[in-house]
Amino acid sequence: MPLPPVPPEIEAFLREPNPAVVATLRADGSPHSVATWYDWVDGLILLNMDATRARLGHLRRDPRVSLTVLDKDSWYSHVTLAGVVDRLEDDPELSDIDRLALRYTAKPFRDRLSERVSAWVRPERWERWE
Amino acid sequence: MPLPPVPPEIEAFLREPNPAVVATLRADGSPHSVATWYDWVDGLILLNMDATRARLGHLRRDPRVSLTVLDKDSWYSHVTLAGVVDRLEDDPELSDIDRLALRYTAKPFRDRLSERVSAWVRPERWERWE
Repeated sequence: MPLPPVPPEIEAFLREPNPAVVATLRADGSPHSVATWYDWVDGLILLNMDATRARLGHLRRDPRVSLTVLDKDSWYSHVTLAGVVDRLEDDPELSDIDRLALRYTAKPFRDRLSERVSAWVRPERWERWE
Repeated sequence: MPLPPVPPEIEAFLREPNPAVVATLRADGSPHSVATWYDWVDGLILLNMDATRARLGHLRRDPRVSLTVLDKDSWYSHVTLAGVVDRLEDDPELSDIDRLALRYTAKPFRDRLSERVSAWVRPERWERWE
């Protein structure tokens, strides 16, 4: 897998609100995967999750992540980014989850009560499949 | 995550030719993910890959897999199956990859020369997100 920085056409693809699946590691080392919203911000991947999510525990224990981003018009075309969590940050103002909700739904996030946490993931390798 | 068998409505969902992403483990234990065709056959997940694919080596070394299947009409609705490879089988007649190609493209697989291998994955847990 090539190293970052990703080329401009991949950055353009990642800036689209595409479907994505994030893979993390459970405590026993097995893979866990789930569909996710994401954004691409200055070379980092923004993920955001409810503070009670199991995968937040996964990321605290082992920061290694793989994100597969599917082309929303032709899903088999995809880009995978392998990386590590650079930092986890509470999102008390819901600004990060609103950023994602606006990107994907054009509306602020509907749940204003649950606590949210952002994971900023630094890609270490990437690959594209057509 | 609930245990199998999956309920009938999840089986019906899995029988649709939905987009999917499979997560496996690299030699260093980090997660790897990639978009994939799959089929649901008698309670097992059929995957098929070129015999040269890195993820075939992943599966031989560690059979643990997570498959996230996205609703083709509304991708955030998804089902994840966590399981293990029950068996790996050469596909010399290309019958398994043709099964997948017909399911997703309505045509036999175009590459008749490369060697293909099927992975039959037995789900051990599943979960649904709406």
